[in-house]
Amino acid sequence: MSTLARRAVAEAVGTGLLVTSVIGSGIMAQRLSPGDAGLQLLENSTATAFALTALILIMGPVSGAHFNPVVSLADWLLSRRTGDGLTGRALLAYLPAQVAGALGGAVLAHLMFELPAVTASTHQRTGTGLWLGEIVATAGLIALIFALARTGRAALAPPAVGAYIGAAYWFTSSTSFANPAVTLGRTLTDTFAGIAPASAPGFIAAQLAGAGLGLALIRLLYPQAS
Amino acid sequence: MSTLARRAVAEAVGTGLLVTSVIGSGIMAQRLSPGDAGLQLLENSTATAFALTALILIMGPVSGAHFNPVVSLADWLLSRRTGDGLTGRALLAYLPAQVAGALGGAVLAHLMFELPAVTASTHQRTGTGLWLGEIVATAGLIALIFALARTGRAALAPPAVGAYIGAAYWFTSSTSFANPAVTLGRTLTDTFAGIAPASAPGFIAAQLAGAGLGLALIRLLYPQAS
Amino acid sequence: MSTLARRAVAEAVGTGLLVTSVIGSGIMAQRLSPGDAGLQLLENSTATAFALTALILIMGPVSGAHFNPVVSLADWLLSRRTGDGLTGRALLAYLPAQVAGALGGAVLAHLMFELPAVTASTHQRTGTGLWLGEIVATAGLIALIFALARTGRAALAPPAVGAYIGAAYWFTSSTSFANPAVTLGRTLTDTFAGIAPASAPGFIAAQLAGAGLGLALIRLLYPQAS
Amino acid sequence: MSTLARRAVAEAVGTGLLVTSVIGSGIMAQRLSPGDAGLQLLENSTATAFALTALILIMGPVSGAHFNPVVSLADWLLSRRTGDGLTGRALLAYLPAQVAGALGGAVLAHLMFELPAVTASTHQRTGTGLWLGEIVATAGLIALIFALARTGRAALAPPAVGAYIGAAYWFTSSTSFANPAVTLGRTLTDTFAGIAPASAPGFIAAQLAGAGLGLALIRLLYPQAS
Repeated sequence: MSTLARRAVAEAVGTGLLVTSVIGSGIMAQRLSPGDAGLQLLENSTATAFALTALILIMGPVSGAHFNPVVSLADWLLSRRTGDGLTGRALLAYLPAQVAGALGGAVLAHLMFELPAVTASTHQRTGTGLWLGEIVATAGLIALIFALARTGRAALAPPAVGAYIGAAYWFTSSTSFANPAVTLGRTLTDTFAGIAPASAPGFIAAQLAGAGLGLALIRLLYPQAS
Repeated sequence: MSTLARRAVAEAVGTGLLVTSVIGSGIMAQRLSPGDAGLQLLENSTATAFALTALILIMGPVSGAHFNPVVSLADWLLSRRTGDGLTGRALLAYLPAQVAGALGGAVLAHLMFELPAVTASTHQRTGTGLWLGEIVATAGLIALIFALARTGRAALAPPAVGAYIGAAYWFTSSTSFANPAVTLGRTLTDTFAGIAPASAPGFIAAQLAGAGLGLALIRLLYPQAS
Repeated sequence: MSTLARRAVAEAVGTGLLVTSVIGSGIMAQRLSPGDAGLQLLENSTATAFALTALILIMGPVSGAHFNPVVSLADWLLSRRTGDGLTGRALLAYLPAQVAGALGGAVLAHLMFELPAVTASTHQRTGTGLWLGEIVATAGLIALIFALARTGRAALAPPAVGAYIGAAYWFTSSTSFANPAVTLGRTLTDTFAGIAPASAPGFIAAQLAGAGLGLALIRLLYPQAS
Repeated sequence: MSTLARRAVAEAVGTGLLVTSVIGSGIMAQRLSPGDAGLQLLENSTATAFALTALILIMGPVSGAHFNPVVSLADWLLSRRTGDGLTGRALLAYLPAQVAGALGGAVLAHLMFELPAVTASTHQRTGTGLWLGEIVATAGLIALIFALARTGRAALAPPAVGAYIGAAYWFTSSTSFANPAVTLGRTLTDTFAGIAPASAPGFIAAQLAGAGLGLALIRLLYPQAS
C-alpha cells in the first residue's frame, strides 16, 4: 500500500471513529440521562474530548490526524510557500477520505446501538447565533492547531485539541461542530448529536469562514514559522 | 524473587486493583446517585479513567502494565518476528496472573463495601449490538497501545489509555469492557458493573475478534516498528 | 506590526476569548441545566478549565498568555531587579489590551447566544467571605504561575493554570474570578457568570491584595529564580 | 530563613490549602447540589484532584510536596539506607508543619464561607469496611508516589497523584482520606468533608497500615531504586 493510501486510510478511520464517538456517546447519554439535557451534553463533551485525544494519538504519526477538511485545507494553504505541509495531491486524497469515514462512523454508531443504519436528522440548527458559534469554534480550533505546529509543540496537539473541543461544546452557542466532515456524518443520525441535512450548508459555510479567520490570526501572531 | 515472578505479581495486583476500581466506583455511584443511571456511569467512567492511569504508572516499569490478556496476546503476536516483546513463557505467566488478580479485585471491592465476598451477577449483557460494541472498544484499545509502542511514545500510555477507556464507556454500546480478565472479575459482582456469567463468553469472543481487528489496523498503519 | 503591538493583540484576543468561554459556558449551562446550580457550576468550571488551557497554548509564545492584569503586574514587579520579565512599557500596553479584550469577549458571548450585546449584571457578589475567597484564589494563582516560571517549568502552565482555576471555582466561596479584567468583562452580562458593577471594586481590591500575598509567598519560597 | 524552615513552611501552606480545597469544595457542593450526594462527591473529587495537582506543582521544588505524614514517614524509611531522602531531622519538622497547616486550612475554608472558624464534625465514619478502604487508598498512594520516585518519573507526580485521589474518592468505601494530617483537619468541620473526632484514630491507624502495605509492595516491585 502506498504511503498516501495509508494516510488516507488513517484519515478515514480516524474521522469515522470520531463521528462514532460523538454520535455513540450522544445516544448513550440520551438513554441514560433522559430529560436532563445539561448532563447529556456534559457526558457527550467529556467522551468526545477524551476520544479525540486518543484518536489523534493513534493516527497522528501516519497522517497528521486532521480528521477535518478545514484543517487539511488550512495546512495546505499555510504551507504552499514553505512546502513542508500537505501537498495538493494529498489534500485531494484527504478530503474524500474524511467525508467517507464520517458517514461510515455514523453507521457504525447506529449498528452498535441497534438503530437503523441511517436516519436523516430532524434537528434544525440554524440562525445567525449558531453560525457565529461555528465561526468562533472553528477559528479557535485552527488557531490552536497551527499555533502549536508553528512553535514546535505539535506533540501537545492530542490533549490540547481534545480539551479545546470539550470546552467549545459549552462556550459556543452551536456546541462546536467545527468540522465539515463531522457535520455531514451527523446529518445521518436522528439522535442527540444530529443536525438536519438542511442545516448543514449553513454550518459548513460558517466553518469555512471561521477557518479563514483562524488563519488570519495565525498569520498575524506567528508571521514566521519557527 | 525472579524477575518473571515479579512481573506476574505486578500484573495480578494491577489487574486486581483495576477491577476493584471499576466495581468499587460502581457501587459508590449506585449508592450516592440512586435512580440516575447517567450520573452513575459518569462517576464510574471518570473514576476508572483516573485509576487506570495511576495503575499503569505504578506497574508499567515492572511488567508493561498490560492488565489485559488480549494486550499480552497481541504483544506476543506482534513481537514474535522482532523478539523485543513478550515471550511465550512470559505470556503463560501473565494470563493466569491477570485472571487471578481480577477475581481477587472483585472480592476486595466487596469487602470494602461490606458486601458478600462474591455474588454472581444477574446483569444480562448480550446481543449483536453489545458484541459489536466490544469489538470496537477492543480494536481501538489495541490500536492505541501499539500505535504508541511502535512510535516511541509508550510513556504517553498511562493518560492515553485512561482517556480512551473513559470515553469508550460512553461511545460504545457495551460500556467498553474490552478485557477478558476484567470481564471474568465482573461476573462475581451483582452490582452496577456486573455481567452475568452466561454473558461473559460472548463478550470475551467479541474482545478477541476486536483485538484481531486492532492488530490488522496496526499492521496496516505501522508496518514497520520505528 | 511591531512586536509589542502583536503581543498586545494576543493579550486582547486571549482575554476576550477567556471571557467568552466563561460567560458562554455559563449561558449554555443555565439553559441546559435550569434549576440545578451545582451542575451549572460543574459545566461552567470544566469548560473554563479546558478553554483556559487551550488559550494559554495558543497565545503563550507570543505574549506569555497573562490574560490578567495582576499577573502582568506581578511579572513586572518580580523582574524589575533581574530585567528578564515584563518591561514597564509592555505593562502599559498589556493592561488596556486585557480590559478591552475582556469587554469585547462579553459582547461576543452574547451575540452567539442571541442576547443583547451588553446588559449590566444584577448579581450582587459582596461581603468579607467572598472577598477572602478572591484573596485566596488570586494568591494561589500567582503562586502557581511564578513557582512554575522560577523553576524552569513554564511549559506546564497551560494545563496547570486550567486545573487550578477549575478547582478554585469550587473551593473558594467566590468561585474564583481572580482577574480584574475578567471581572470587568463579567459586569456586562446578566447571566450565570455575571457580577454587578457595584460589586466589582470590592472583588478587584481583593484580587490585588491576593496578588500581593502570592508574591510574598513566592519571595519566601523561591528567593532566587533558578 | 533556613532551608529547612522554608521547606516546613511549604509543607504547612500546601497541606493547609489542600484541606481548604477539600472542605471548601465540599461546602460549595453541599450548597449548590443539596440532596444529590453523588453530584456532591463528583464536584468534591474533581476539585480536589485538580487542586492537589496545582499544589504539588507549587510546592514540589521546595519541600517535595508531601502534605501527608505517611508520605514523609515512608520517604524517611525508604531512604535510610541510601541517604538520599528525608532525614530524621527534616521528618521532625515536616510532621508538625503538616498537622498545623491542616488545622489552619480548615479554619480558612470556614472563614471564606462565613461559617464558625471551627466546629467538631458529627459525621461518624467507622467500621471494618471503611478501615479497609483507608488501607487500600493509602497503600495505592504510597505505591504510586514511590514507583514514580524510584524510576526517575517524579515530574509526573502532580497530575498522577491528583488523578489517583480523584479516582480513590470513588473506588474506596471511605472516599480515600489517605492522610493523617488531612484527617485531623477534617475533624474540625461539620460539613460535607467532615469526620467525627472519635472516628479519626481508626482512620489514622488504617492509613498507617496501608502505608506499610504500600511500602512492602514497593520493596517487592522496585527492589533497587533506579
